[in-house]
Amino acid sequence: MSAGGYTGKVLRVNLTHQSYCEEPLKQEIARQYLGGAGFGLKYLFDEVPMGTGALEEGNKLIFATGPLTGTKAPCASRMSVAAKSPLTGGAGVALSGGYFPAELKFAGYDLIIIEGKSPKPVYLYIRNGMVSFRPAAKLWGMKTSDCERVIKNDLRNQNVRVACIGPAGEQLSYMAAIINERHAAGRKGLGAVMGSKNLKAVAVWGENEVALADKGAFDNARRRMLQAMKESPVVYPKFSRHGTPMTVDVTCGLGIFPAANWSRTGEWEPIEPLGMEGNNKRKSGKEYCYNCPVGCTQNKLVRNGRYAGYLSAPEFETIYSFGGQTGVDNLDSIIAADYLCDELGLDTISTGVTIGFAMELFEKGILTKKETDGVELCFGNHVAMVEMIKKIAFREGLGDILADGTRVAASKIGKGAEKYCMHIKGLELPGYDVRGAKAHGLSMATTYTGADHNRGYAFQEIFGVPVPYPVDRFEAEGKGKLTKWNQDMRAVTCDCAPMCAFLMDMAVPQIAAENTSDLVSAATGISFTPEEIYLVGERLNNLARVFNIREGMRRKDDTFPERILTEPLKAGNSKGQYISRQELDRMLDEYYRERGWTSEGVPTRKKLESLGMPEAIKSLEEVGGLNFD
Amino acid sequence: MSAGGYTGKVLRVNLTHQSYCEEPLKQEIARQYLGGAGFGLKYLFDEVPMGTGALEEGNKLIFATGPLTGTKAPCASRMSVAAKSPLTGGAGVALSGGYFPAELKFAGYDLIIIEGKSPKPVYLYIRNGMVSFRPAAKLWGMKTSDCERVIKNDLRNQNVRVACIGPAGEQLSYMAAIINERHAAGRKGLGAVMGSKNLKAVAVWGENEVALADKGAFDNARRRMLQAMKESPVVYPKFSRHGTPMTVDVTCGLGIFPAANWSRTGEWEPIEPLGMEGNNKRKSGKEYCYNCPVGCTQNKLVRNGRYAGYLSAPEFETIYSFGGQTGVDNLDSIIAADYLCDELGLDTISTGVTIGFAMELFEKGILTKKETDGVELCFGNHVAMVEMIKKIAFREGLGDILADGTRVAASKIGKGAEKYCMHIKGLELPGYDVRGAKAHGLSMATTYTGADHNRGYAFQEIFGVPVPYPVDRFEAEGKGKLTKWNQDMRAVTCDCAPMCAFLMDMAVPQIAAENTSDLVSAATGISFTPEEIYLVGERLNNLARVFNIREGMRRKDDTFPERILTEPLKAGNSKGQYISRQELDRMLDEYYRERGWTSEGVPTRKKLESLGMPEAIKSLEEVGGLNFD
Repeated sequence: MSAGGYTGKVLRVNLTHQSYCEEPLKQEIARQYLGGAGFGLKYLFDEVPMGTGALEEGNKLIFATGPLTGTKAPCASRMSVAAKSPLTGGAGVALSGGYFPAELKFAGYDLIIIEGKSPKPVYLYIRNGMVSFRPAAKLWGMKTSDCERVIKNDLRNQNVRVACIGPAGEQLSYMAAIINERHAAGRKGLGAVMGSKNLKAVAVWGENEVALADKGAFDNARRRMLQAMKESPVVYPKFSRHGTPMTVDVTCGLGIFPAANWSRTGEWEPIEPLGMEGNNKRKSGKEYCYNCPVGCTQNKLVRNGRYAGYLSAPEFETIYSFGGQTGVDNLDSIIAADYLCDELGLDTISTGVTIGFAMELFEKGILTKKETDGVELCFGNHVAMVEMIKKIAFREGLGDILADGTRVAASKIGKGAEKYCMHIKGLELPGYDVRGAKAHGLSMATTYTGADHNRGYAFQEIFGVPVPYPVDRFEAEGKGKLTKWNQDMRAVTCDCAPMCAFLMDMAVPQIAAENTSDLVSAATGISFTPEEIYLVGERLNNLARVFNIREGMRRKDDTFPERILTEPLKAGNSKGQYISRQELDRMLDEYYRERGWTSEGVPTRKKLESLGMPEAIKSLEEVGGLNFD
Repeated sequence: MSAGGYTGKVLRVNLTHQSYCEEPLKQEIARQYLGGAGFGLKYLFDEVPMGTGALEEGNKLIFATGPLTGTKAPCASRMSVAAKSPLTGGAGVALSGGYFPAELKFAGYDLIIIEGKSPKPVYLYIRNGMVSFRPAAKLWGMKTSDCERVIKNDLRNQNVRVACIGPAGEQLSYMAAIINERHAAGRKGLGAVMGSKNLKAVAVWGENEVALADKGAFDNARRRMLQAMKESPVVYPKFSRHGTPMTVDVTCGLGIFPAANWSRTGEWEPIEPLGMEGNNKRKSGKEYCYNCPVGCTQNKLVRNGRYAGYLSAPEFETIYSFGGQTGVDNLDSIIAADYLCDELGLDTISTGVTIGFAMELFEKGILTKKETDGVELCFGNHVAMVEMIKKIAFREGLGDILADGTRVAASKIGKGAEKYCMHIKGLELPGYDVRGAKAHGLSMATTYTGADHNRGYAFQEIFGVPVPYPVDRFEAEGKGKLTKWNQDMRAVTCDCAPMCAFLMDMAVPQIAAENTSDLVSAATGISFTPEEIYLVGERLNNLARVFNIREGMRRKDDTFPERILTEPLKAGNSKGQYISRQELDRMLDEYYRERGWTSEGVPTRKKLESLGMPEAIKSLEEVGGLNFD
């Protein structure tokens, strides 16, 4: 393929045989799936057989950029990592930014498909289309920043960009992340997949430029997008200044900032210590991804006390997971926790939620000091929280039990612990108590990666953006249709293009499809209408759904933890709200109907035909017994 | 000046006025002082008036390379940092390696003289001869690796090399170091001088090549030196493999590995946990300085337990200061301590020795739990030791009292604490109990920087190298002459050239002067005989001596802590040894005589005239009252 935007080359690496080959990127795949998570899931779907264990040699790990990565499109230095997820057992994708994604393109490839398992620890060095397998025994056990530094020195090239796992990935923690310069492809345990392959790191560097099919049109589209960002009432005046921590204030205002393993949402709202005020006191400059005009990475520095010297940039989700969820209102300890997760290679959301879960078990007497090595693991104990992160990463003591997330931990602990698990499909819940934000909840219940706020964020409910129409966040009616729109739009703009999620929600939701189609068409020379762009997102969500169906998931898995279904919120601005089973059922019915899926949540032949997905039809036929039409 | 080897340019920066200018490097200075510490001390001597406080605006901070820095001479990516030292009140120099020194030459300068005090936190960016002052408010409080990363991102140049201070330097700790990529210009508190100037960092990058006057001769000299390294029985078979930690085994074997604030040397010898064996178990690859064929930086990684994930490369001295000196035999905690000192910007020797000193005070009841915030600060408590490092860096609690080293701490604590201070001229002692190595001791007693093993290392006593002649380490007789040779040879080869100290001692002591003169002559085109090279070292030691005399130092300051003068070693292979006052006096008499100094330790007019040092004569005349001849 010789379209602009893409390098046109796929790198396939076999770790078992330490071999690699190049394949052309097929135009058909580019047109249908665009890039990023689209590419990742398409190759995963086609190549990873049903029933393959996530940590088995047969799983594949796919790093994929899109047609805008490495161009001057703002906020487009993004990539997707995809693999079957050890946490969910289904299709897993996680995205991250930084410089690595653009550099991968400069190094010569749109995507890397990593297969097999190296007999010994290894890292990959990809330089201007040349690939080498380098021994990583000495890197094994290293924190991510040490690994990056040693690799740069090893290669005598300070310009390489490194994505790697930390000790948690080596220990096959289901919560392990892949980190590039403090940017995490964090969720769904993809770091464990990398660890299972004995792959410590991927280092990339190159001098290729990304060609554009129509530079004039591209520059125009880019200017329009920058203008939309400028005109947004949110991006520059607020978001660029405060970053995501401002969402603490927002969610507390809505009464949906989850507290104490979701048992005290609305009752305990630590706005001052954990919100904008607390964060702004510790501000210490911002950092930018490649070609980003915003710089949402707000460094926070602890200047005195127990955690003095820790510097990190905790996003809202991290403040939730190590703050609200654990009952901790000490922001310094959260900054330390965030730093440690980046260094040890852990997903902050799952790790914090799992620690909060263990705290509730401790308070309920299900875990005792015997299991915690004498530690008072109660809500609010930030010292215990920070120590537990290290134990999880190295699988020491109780950390070994918690290292695979709440679902696995509950099954090991028994004694009714599963009642306190806050996960959907195995993935721990992010920082929005969906009892007070029902489209947000419906998306998490139905999306293919589990409790994932990034696969269909209902910014209408959280930020009050009236696009495509204004909504009532407590109302179930109409949320099926909204969720489909949110999921499909996110899928194409943020996961396939892939561009930064924040901008889509905050600046340009109303013109997201137009902007993306303009930029992508100009870059690639393949003409996409806004409608076609939207269809790419829908196609992705259908493909991923079929992947999960193949693995045994059904309507029964599109659900919430017990607590959400049965315990109304006791205080705050969402007081009294919950999502009953009946309400969930009504929302699911509407959602499946809007999607053109059966009442079991299975895509129909008609829907798949209309999206041009014969491979998905064939898969569903193979698993058999499903009601197609 | 247009000789090879040098850039010929001096950068003078005034922080008060945020201005800078270039000056030519004078050939006369190059011929007399060669480079590195020679340049640093010469400018310091000429420009910092007598009586200037080390942390006052009038002090200057001088980064200086030499004629071999940035060339292909092995082990020559070194630089000196010089300033009046807050710890000793005298001339302070500290050297470090890495990539920064070579990059400073590539950026266009042989040395940088930093004057004044910036009104606000600032960092310098020096790029191909262009200098900019950049705001550093956001960097203030950052650990050194964070500072380096943020600066690289800030400048969008991953190839810059950064030397910076950590929180300790900002807090004006007299033990603060200047760190470049984990290489420390560690001793004498030069980090506090940098902090006092509100200078967080210096970033350098450039593309200048270092010209050579006679490339053929240079290559020949280089080959001879590499050959000498190859033939050395120490460099490749041992040193390159084990690094400096092998000195634990060596000094324990000699009964001179100091233990428990020097109270139990010879009785407690933790060879297994802290020596080669313990270190090799934790090995995790090596790192190299620019153009170094050896790679003595041996990374050590903690793989489990309380300190899991810590990675650093503790040198012998650090293993002594946080190990023997504190009675700690937990190597993992020493790896953590080393890491923390690099990140917080502290000298490992002074910090460890000061903590060991506090531990003895605690055991003696001079410090109590009231002062330690309830901590059992006794020998062997590695948890307390690691915590104390952080308290020192941020001046919290007892850390504030300890942050300026043993001498200041003792004067604040009172109650006879000064009896337990292990320092000379204010600088904490390194890891050789000089009671069993008397030339080593004499050098520390007499050299201008205080208890500094690097200004005249008696490798004859420690490693049994019979150059220039074999010695008996318990014998005082003849040590004056040896010490002069050791000090002058070190001064020129390691401090002025400046080349790596290890090689001079371990590979080529017998040909150090020849090698250096060959390499330097070929590089610069200024012809130096080996004798002239040696004289450069002697000149440096005389100049620094006069600097200190000007500040009030005399024979009385060339002494040892009480313990060394009065307590014989109780066990081990140096049992019974100590250095009595009479013995010290005999050694000093011989040393001064060999040096051509008066019995008060003052250089004579004759000596200074023979070295061609009118500036030193003038200074001595100005301070008056001294017996010159």
